[in-house]
Amino acid sequence: MQAVELIRKKRDGAILTGEEIAWFVEQYTRGEIADYQASAWLMAVYWRGMNAQETTDLTLSMARSGTQLKVREALAPVVDKHSTGGVGDKVTLAVAPLVAACGVAVGKMSGRGLGHTGGTIDKLEAVAGFRSSLDRAEFLEILLKHHLVLAGQSSDLAPADGKMYALRDVTGTVESIPLIAASIMSKKLAIGASHLLLDVKFGSGAFMKNLEDARLLARTMVDIGRLSGLHTVAAITSMEQPLGRAIGNALEMVEAIAILRGEGPGDVSDLCYHETAELLVLTGSVSSMAEAEMRVRNAVYSGAALAKLAEVIEAQGGNPRQIERPELLPTAPVRLMLTAPRTGYLAAIDAERMGLASMHLGAGRFQKGDAIDHRTGFVLQAKTGDHLRAGDPLLEIHARTRTEADMIQPELLACYRWSEARVTAGPLVLDTLRP
Amino acid sequence: MQAVELIRKKRDGAILTGEEIAWFVEQYTRGEIADYQASAWLMAVYWRGMNAQETTDLTLSMARSGTQLKVREALAPVVDKHSTGGVGDKVTLAVAPLVAACGVAVGKMSGRGLGHTGGTIDKLEAVAGFRSSLDRAEFLEILLKHHLVLAGQSSDLAPADGKMYALRDVTGTVESIPLIAASIMSKKLAIGASHLLLDVKFGSGAFMKNLEDARLLARTMVDIGRLSGLHTVAAITSMEQPLGRAIGNALEMVEAIAILRGEGPGDVSDLCYHETAELLVLTGSVSSMAEAEMRVRNAVYSGAALAKLAEVIEAQGGNPRQIERPELLPTAPVRLMLTAPRTGYLAAIDAERMGLASMHLGAGRFQKGDAIDHRTGFVLQAKTGDHLRAGDPLLEIHARTRTEADMIQPELLACYRWSEARVTAGPLVLDTLRP
Repeated sequence: MQAVELIRKKRDGAILTGEEIAWFVEQYTRGEIADYQASAWLMAVYWRGMNAQETTDLTLSMARSGTQLKVREALAPVVDKHSTGGVGDKVTLAVAPLVAACGVAVGKMSGRGLGHTGGTIDKLEAVAGFRSSLDRAEFLEILLKHHLVLAGQSSDLAPADGKMYALRDVTGTVESIPLIAASIMSKKLAIGASHLLLDVKFGSGAFMKNLEDARLLARTMVDIGRLSGLHTVAAITSMEQPLGRAIGNALEMVEAIAILRGEGPGDVSDLCYHETAELLVLTGSVSSMAEAEMRVRNAVYSGAALAKLAEVIEAQGGNPRQIERPELLPTAPVRLMLTAPRTGYLAAIDAERMGLASMHLGAGRFQKGDAIDHRTGFVLQAKTGDHLRAGDPLLEIHARTRTEADMIQPELLACYRWSEARVTAGPLVLDTLRP
Repeated sequence: MQAVELIRKKRDGAILTGEEIAWFVEQYTRGEIADYQASAWLMAVYWRGMNAQETTDLTLSMARSGTQLKVREALAPVVDKHSTGGVGDKVTLAVAPLVAACGVAVGKMSGRGLGHTGGTIDKLEAVAGFRSSLDRAEFLEILLKHHLVLAGQSSDLAPADGKMYALRDVTGTVESIPLIAASIMSKKLAIGASHLLLDVKFGSGAFMKNLEDARLLARTMVDIGRLSGLHTVAAITSMEQPLGRAIGNALEMVEAIAILRGEGPGDVSDLCYHETAELLVLTGSVSSMAEAEMRVRNAVYSGAALAKLAEVIEAQGGNPRQIERPELLPTAPVRLMLTAPRTGYLAAIDAERMGLASMHLGAGRFQKGDAIDHRTGFVLQAKTGDHLRAGDPLLEIHARTRTEADMIQPELLACYRWSEARVTAGPLVLDTLRP
């Protein structure tokens, strides 16, 4: 096989075989195929696309390029969960312990935040002592003992994806549905859970800006799951406004705890309970959504869900008392209430812009490796559709200094659109794709 | 400016500005843009194409990347000529001295052959002592003195093209009309003649396999000429069968001399005279094609055309007596006549396959830098449309050894298609595109 032949084949719109794709990924990972050939090939893939089988072959090849945890060989069913990322997205923090409390094991590796979207690991590290860096043995040990583990992503997970993503980033080949799908799913396949729930977000605060792209990405990933033996369900959810009310690491941890107690904001709580129920049905642990929802309610109101989070936090070196009493989590020294500048209905909240604003307070990273401040962020006092009067509380700023809190205000006010007429926020879950 | 932005812009189908293209080519030539970004960009160009202005901007940027000879500042009009290459294509060897003998200067740099198509420089080097490697001063001196110079291509001519071509070769981005056109025309613009005749060949023996692609390439190059101030005309000519009767370096030199004497095969002689006349009209040296054709006939029958070739050969160190008496050119030790295996009309001669066969006798190069044997090749005794009887002479093999001559015979016979019914060869010049 020759790299240039595979470039030309894809360039001309032909379908690559599994052997060809595996060879290309292996040779590229080993450095036998040069970056300049890989980037031309990636641009040809960007142009011509890939069918479900090609995308699956690419995903499997990338998954096999490094360590494979094969967690389902240790324990089954075992669930994984992935969100394409959003602003205020603390869903994993709540869903993972909820699912585990409902009797289904969850083995999850999460990333750190970059840009306007936060990362689950950053939120967990708001807890004193929490250790996200686990080796393979620790990961499996905690999973087997607690039926829940929340680790940072191992650097040896699908290294082909890491290498290819870095190249895509500088060659204009990021925004390709098959490449995005393969990148996400390769890491899921390398972990090797038996069941996967995907939360594919669309809207101003998400990577996918419109519903059609989100649906296509979701369909592509569900197909990869089907063709590679990973039972996958994808919820397509709206990220037009921030999810829930808290944005920022400790603040989102507090909100996740509230959700686990049944005291969280309606929109994000419903989403967490719904996704948990989907996973219970997907794994066959219950026979209907109605039964699943009852199981979820029991886990919440019995305290089992919150206890499960405290248990895994402790198992990973964190202070469980900060889960039982979230007021012990670190807080920002300055709190400032931003008030409504006018009377009217809140017509829209620009999630991406608000996410970017939170970065200026230290809650997020401009570049990989930046340090973050777990304490800072915002708590929304009103959401799209709410009617406010001028002077009503709009958003609470949690900042390191008064100056930073003051300086961010104009930017925050610019995130809001107002309306004289009544406005209704759209539904949060637009669709659920099953295999 | 950022390379990735220009990749994305072209990827998304937008038009690049002259500044953007110049920046990209300059930075790439300097090594400031990596190969992996250039190859992704080239694939995006392959996909999205370029309009006439973009293609011209690319061409000019590549032309400016190295030495610029600006020959038209020394002498005007001064003509350049380029063929996209074929099998048995000795047209430049005849047209250049013919044009010069008709009173219009010709400053030409030619390449060496690679693969199934021969190169003008290889053919000239069949003459003892001929020196193709001229520096800029020599090139201009010979041009000014003799109104004709036939040099090899300087390695400092459009180095951006050389670098980009090498990358295209290994990244599946060769077969792009704008990139092919820019590659050819950048070297023409770097030489800087005032007028250019392009011979764009199509058919089994040419790089362009069909008429439509040849027409598009020709139109693209004529447009580049128009937008960059180089008066350009393009003849679109057939390469369905080998041109003329001789294939091989010294053999083609002999045939070119016959053409200059008015004794060459009809098809290729007519083509040479036609292209010469086009150039005389293009440069305004004559007022009509009829006048041009008379001028060409005079140059041939007066002996002026052949004398001009002998003159420039001598000026470049070659033995002019080999031009006056072509039987002095080197000849192969073995000659073997292949005869018709059947009676019938010759329906087709596969030019590419015959060109490849000549390489096996040493007449061409499999790889850059291979040595060639100037003596070997073929002389066709019959062409498409001829009626032969079994046993009639078909083709004379000129080989180094009897074994090589014998071994190539089955391959040669496979180049022919026969017909019971009468067959007529199509016209040689299909169209002429003017600015």
